[in-house]
Amino acid sequence: MKLKIKKFMVDAGRPVVFMHENTARNLDVHVGDRVEIQKNKRKIVAVVDLVIGFLNINEIALSRDILNYETLKSGDLVDVKAVFSQRSSLIIAKKMQGEKLSKKDIYTIIEDIVNNILTEPEIAYFVSAVYEKCFDIDETIYLTEAIYKTGNILSWKNNVVADKHSIGGIPGNRTSPIVVSICAAAGLTLPKTSSRAITSAAGTADVMEVITKVDLESSNLKKIVEKTGACLAWGGSLGLAPADDKLIKVERILNVDPESQLIASIIAKKLAVGSKYVLIDIPYGDGAKVSKSEAEKLKRKFLIIAKHFRINMKVVLTLGNQPIGDGIGPVLEIIDVLKILNNSSTAPKDLEDKSIFLAGEILEMTGKSQKGSGKLTANQILYSGKALKKFNEIINAQGRKKVKLSPAKFKKTIFSKKNGTIKIIDNKIINIMGRKIGCPADKRAGLYIHKHLGNKVKRGDELLTFYAESKEKLNDSLTFFKSTRPIKIN
Amino acid sequence: MKLKIKKFMVDAGRPVVFMHENTARNLDVHVGDRVEIQKNKRKIVAVVDLVIGFLNINEIALSRDILNYETLKSGDLVDVKAVFSQRSSLIIAKKMQGEKLSKKDIYTIIEDIVNNILTEPEIAYFVSAVYEKCFDIDETIYLTEAIYKTGNILSWKNNVVADKHSIGGIPGNRTSPIVVSICAAAGLTLPKTSSRAITSAAGTADVMEVITKVDLESSNLKKIVEKTGACLAWGGSLGLAPADDKLIKVERILNVDPESQLIASIIAKKLAVGSKYVLIDIPYGDGAKVSKSEAEKLKRKFLIIAKHFRINMKVVLTLGNQPIGDGIGPVLEIIDVLKILNNSSTAPKDLEDKSIFLAGEILEMTGKSQKGSGKLTANQILYSGKALKKFNEIINAQGRKKVKLSPAKFKKTIFSKKNGTIKIIDNKIINIMGRKIGCPADKRAGLYIHKHLGNKVKRGDELLTFYAESKEKLNDSLTFFKSTRPIKIN
Repeated sequence: MKLKIKKFMVDAGRPVVFMHENTARNLDVHVGDRVEIQKNKRKIVAVVDLVIGFLNINEIALSRDILNYETLKSGDLVDVKAVFSQRSSLIIAKKMQGEKLSKKDIYTIIEDIVNNILTEPEIAYFVSAVYEKCFDIDETIYLTEAIYKTGNILSWKNNVVADKHSIGGIPGNRTSPIVVSICAAAGLTLPKTSSRAITSAAGTADVMEVITKVDLESSNLKKIVEKTGACLAWGGSLGLAPADDKLIKVERILNVDPESQLIASIIAKKLAVGSKYVLIDIPYGDGAKVSKSEAEKLKRKFLIIAKHFRINMKVVLTLGNQPIGDGIGPVLEIIDVLKILNNSSTAPKDLEDKSIFLAGEILEMTGKSQKGSGKLTANQILYSGKALKKFNEIINAQGRKKVKLSPAKFKKTIFSKKNGTIKIIDNKIINIMGRKIGCPADKRAGLYIHKHLGNKVKRGDELLTFYAESKEKLNDSLTFFKSTRPIKIN
Repeated sequence: MKLKIKKFMVDAGRPVVFMHENTARNLDVHVGDRVEIQKNKRKIVAVVDLVIGFLNINEIALSRDILNYETLKSGDLVDVKAVFSQRSSLIIAKKMQGEKLSKKDIYTIIEDIVNNILTEPEIAYFVSAVYEKCFDIDETIYLTEAIYKTGNILSWKNNVVADKHSIGGIPGNRTSPIVVSICAAAGLTLPKTSSRAITSAAGTADVMEVITKVDLESSNLKKIVEKTGACLAWGGSLGLAPADDKLIKVERILNVDPESQLIASIIAKKLAVGSKYVLIDIPYGDGAKVSKSEAEKLKRKFLIIAKHFRINMKVVLTLGNQPIGDGIGPVLEIIDVLKILNNSSTAPKDLEDKSIFLAGEILEMTGKSQKGSGKLTANQILYSGKALKKFNEIINAQGRKKVKLSPAKFKKTIFSKKNGTIKIIDNKIINIMGRKIGCPADKRAGLYIHKHLGNKVKRGDELLTFYAESKEKLNDSLTFFKSTRPIKIN
């Protein structure tokens, strides 16, 4: 169908077209379906989003995302036709029946995801089918390859490109800025990209964003890494493994995270960023994403997939039965990181120890330290101030922000009502309280944990402090605390 | 968060709000998430759809759907907060693990669907979980009850309210207008509501719409049924079982139709419309939705659920291994129906026979005929012209359209290339060809089937005629025909 473009300055954050109800009916499309818009040889797929009163039946309005990207202007005639994801639909139905998918099947689905041809409910059916019927090793390899090859790929002059990744789930646990600073100070290249929080109070990108610019363009990121040896950037603006971002968006809806997609997602991102040496941290235990036996199983699969793609990988299992570090929330976590880099006497020892352990492993993997002396080397780099110097170089190169690091103004501390020993600090409840108090959008909001597992407490000791930007959010989080009691004392 | 309403005349077909990117970020919502808008005590839930350049951070624009429905106007201050479907999410996750859901669980999900709190990908996860892990009888009963009680419910003075329903899948098969006319002529009350086509060339509502108004308001529908004894209306505008419409929309994406949802959907609609006697037609066989043994299983479940709700139900299994009637497509199908009602010599015998069989069953169930003589009574009503008279009463009451009943102008007939007997006419391919040729939007487009299973054909006999509104659609459908060859001759 030929339609005339009408100017409509809307930022939809994704390619969206608007058309008259009758036009949609003639095209046999509904809100949420996809259409292909063609002019000359250029084609773009967009979501049918709204049927608007001010449009005539022969007109189509395009969101600014399309107008900026394509050379289309008001009055242009374009060919518009419905796009159906028939091939992908059949493949998803096949997986729902429990059949194994071929390499071509998986590429078809991932390409349709990248090109906006699959809708979110279709992606949900795909995620659900993989969750129910599982992917075997072959399918996981195809998925990894399809995810990384359908996006941008970075490459580096230096061959010793290293990276670390945690499967997440543990509040605090902000090791990346410290590990990256130590390893880059030792001469390694670490193009570290991180995500924003999905269901927790803060992701590394949210934390770094407090003090520096994290949404970097590819070319700028390359310059920064070549100058300083590393970066601590947000992965979302680089076009690396774009299918993965869309899969994660649908997965987070129900926190459905099929094992094969978790592995493919992580390895595809590392392949896209050009890492050759990768350390994977799998926290396990009560309140972590996995138990110890699940962690062992996951580790074996990670190693098989990494070997296929010739990544030099080490997987460590770490105890994740409580938050790591004292602060939870972007500002409170960057304060912990800076205390450690500055060798402050009030730095959280658990976070420092874990960071040194991880950095030591990377130094050994890459031959920067001898077997058995990685931790010692990491320690020396941290205590000598070299890690802090490297951290500042990176922050400055990305674009340091002038900011006073203080927590939000509404505050409430919880005190112990008895003498005893801390037995439980529930990660999942802590994460939800962190969201309820306003994180990650409210950067200065969060929780401060005064006592960790095994610590002795006396009646009246401080246990937990809440920081919020509004009384309402403070009360929301406190109410949830009172109904769930995530800290238990014996 | 307090936001100011800005006027924005957009018909979105569902409640949608527009806000600035930073406002969305502060509310911690993304495109597709839900927000609750409150003024005084009134609350409405709407979808966050777009982040628009022309809005300030303290403003919110509402789609016309909301502005018409609620007493809100430009400049009003409203409270806006994010709505999360946490309860429903936990319940869906529970079903994904294979646990049985409680009555309360199922009501929570269905209420959240009705109130726009669940997003489409969330509904897809729910449908998928029910498909994979199945609902037992209790869960199916809860689902049926929740679907029907969360919508409008019609009631009637007359207690002998009857209805028929086919589980669908067979092209043509337009028995409802004939069955309803015969049974209403016999004195029964039949508030028949039908759907539009979901994946086929036409639904009963699409076919009736050719000659009469089908989108009736509840009060008007009641008047028509009380005056004429029946209606042949579209079910979508009556607010009956609204959760079902939203479930079907997500199910059609992949044609996932869990058995329990199929049963709950049909029985809930019959309960909502106030039917006490219900005849269910389950077509089975090659190219039908189910095999004979699946049909038997489905029949048993239908009867159990119907008994729980005190519906007097009969289920018949009919052979559905080919299209029924000659025409496929809205105009071609209404022509078949009118030929039968007018006792024309060219009326399709298979459709007439099936309609008389179904009408006879209803007449016997409701005591309008003695056991064994229902078909005879139905035959008499049809041949006497009483059915046609009743049909015209209903059409006139709903609002007859003046229309010339002729098929679309672009035409192509397929002839037999050999002598033999028709062995296969593939329902599924015929349905897809019907869509490709423009149905149901192009009312005059469609297919005409000259020969049925078992018919002898000679080389050069007409097999199938294609009708289309454009050469492009004609060719689309023909190309598909040539690559699939849905008619086989022995």
